[in-house]
This record gives sequence, structure tokens and C-alpha cells, in this order.
Amino acid sequence: MNREQMIEKVKAEMPERRWLHTQGVMDTAIVLAKRFGEDPVRSELAAILHDVAKYWPTERMKQVIQEQSLPADLLYYDKELWHAPVGAWIAEHEYGVTDSEVLNAIRYHTSGRRGMTKLEKIVCLADYMEPGRDFPGVNDIRRLSEQFLDEALLAGFNSTISFLIQKGKRIFPLTVEARNGLLE
Amino acid sequence: MNREQMIEKVKAEMPERRWLHTQGVMDTAIVLAKRFGEDPVRSELAAILHDVAKYWPTERMKQVIQEQSLPADLLYYDKELWHAPVGAWIAEHEYGVTDSEVLNAIRYHTSGRRGMTKLEKIVCLADYMEPGRDFPGVNDIRRLSEQFLDEALLAGFNSTISFLIQKGKRIFPLTVEARNGLLE
Repeated sequence: MNREQMIEKVKAEMPERRWLHTQGVMDTAIVLAKRFGEDPVRSELAAILHDVAKYWPTERMKQVIQEQSLPADLLYYDKELWHAPVGAWIAEHEYGVTDSEVLNAIRYHTSGRRGMTKLEKIVCLADYMEPGRDFPGVNDIRRLSEQFLDEALLAGFNSTISFLIQKGKRIFPLTVEARNGLLE
Repeated sequence: MNREQMIEKVKAEMPERRWLHTQGVMDTAIVLAKRFGEDPVRSELAAILHDVAKYWPTERMKQVIQEQSLPADLLYYDKELWHAPVGAWIAEHEYGVTDSEVLNAIRYHTSGRRGMTKLEKIVCLADYMEPGRDFPGVNDIRRLSEQFLDEALLAGFNSTISFLIQKGKRIFPLTVEARNGLLE
């Protein structure tokens, strides 16, 4: 499957506004990759596919998590987290992606994890700060990203954790691990 | 060792102002125990001993953690956390406390943990809100504690996590687990 075919197939999986978000993540991932010395092609590939499972029905995601032995603790946390590992599974099995670093960048783009690769950081950060994003602190993240990959991503995780505290929602332990890893 | 002997020995382990804090935690733990149906005597016992290791030299705490096989991941996190499990060890070995629930209330009074007992919650909450405490949000915690043990403790954990984010410090995973547990 070439890039254009992949884009058409992904586009068909989501509403127009989520595709606009995906395009924002693609463009931002390329900019960040060039800025911080990562491969823009692999960064864009992960960005194209990062939200491929976002509009899958909950039950279908749950089925993949259970049947494909993805981490079962996910099921105890916010459904918002599920599409990332399910997306990595789809990227591999329906889009033929074999690059394990690209798959991990999709897998950890929402939660993060301890010891993230540069590619994982870029996709996660691009998802936080693509031009369509608008939440308190997003401009601080964008400003930090002009020079510092880790600091910008840390600000992103801080905003997620603060948001979850404010909303009285549970915090996914992997995100805390990812943040702790960046501080080490 | 009777109560008075224990108090004298603990008092000698800390400066005056920390002893005043300990007295605040003792009084508050008794009030909370009566309010929420826990044993005030065991609650006070845990409170008397909760900070017994607070002024131990770092190296001595480290030695106990290593030699007594306390959780080694503690050593990678803030030293502020160490005195709790070390205190539980001291309570058992130097003060002859055999009640495992009292020992756990000392052990988890700073970090919390998933699935806390009522006694653990009471000591942890008393430590947050004793009359000498003064930090943003402490009055919200006190107000909540008039009716709701879990909600008050949740507000305490929220204040800790927000403080650590603000200070750019790592968050201890057990505290996130404790908070997630309260939300379940």
C-alpha cells in the first residue's frame, strides 16, 4: 500500500474534523522530526495512522485488546486510551506496517511510557500541539517545542495529568512513568 | 512499652515542631477514627509512630531499605517517601508493634496505596490536615473530612500530585494507584 492509498483508507475511518487533526499531526511530526533529527518519513507514517482506531466502536476495540492479548489493564482505564494500542495492531495487520518503532509510536502516542524513543516523543508531542489543538497551556507547549523536545512533552503530560485531576478521572500509570522518565 | 514511654522515645527522635505536628496527627486521627468507625487507640498508635524515622539520616534510612529488603524502587523517588516504610520497620523492631494494620498505616501514610484500609486512610488524612498544616487547599480537605473520608483523602492526593507537577518533581506511582483506587 503506498502513501496515497493509506491516506485514503485512514480518511475513510474517521469524520472530516478528525482527518483535519490527523493532517495537523502529520505536518507537525515532519517539522519536529527535522528539528530534532528524526526521520520525517517514518514520523509522518506514524502520524497518518495514529488515530486509525479512534472511531472504532468500543466493543470492537475491546475485542482486539482481549483477543490479541494487548495489555488488559487498559480496559480498567479511560476508553480514550484504547485506540492507541488498537491502532498499532491495525497498522500492522491491516496496513502492513512492519517497522516496530513506527508501531510503538502509534501504540504509545496517548499514554506515553518510560524510556520513549525520539520517534515516540515526536508523534506524542505532535498530537498535543498540532495547529488545531486548543486547550489551556497549548501555547506553552508549542513555545517549548521550538527548542526542547523533552521539556515540551513534559508540559504536555503535565497538562494531561492536571486535566484528569480537575475532572476527577483516573490517571493512567504509564503516563506518570513517562513523565518520571523525562525528569530522570 | 506503654503509651507514655513510647511518646517519650518518639519525641526524642525529632525536633519540637515535628513533635507538635505528631501531636496534631494523633488528635486528628482520634477524631477521624470516632467519626468514621475505626478504633481510636490503634489510630493514635499509628499516628504516634508515623514520623518516627523522619529525622533519621538519609544513609541510615537507605541502609534499612536495602538490608531489610523494603521496596527498592523507593530509592529512585523523593527521599520524603523513605521515612514511612522505614518508620514501619522501626515501629515493629524498636517499639514492639505487632499489629500489621497499624504497621501498614505507618508504612503507607505518605504514599498511600491501592486498596487502603480505613486505618491507613485515617492516618494519611490526619497527616494532611492536622491543625498545624497550611497549604493551598487544606481547608477544602478539612471541610470534606467532616463527612467523607474518601473524598477528603482524594483531595489530599490531588494536592500532592498537583504540587509535584508544579515543582517539576516525579510522582510516586503508588500515590497514583491510591488515587485511582479511591475513584473506582
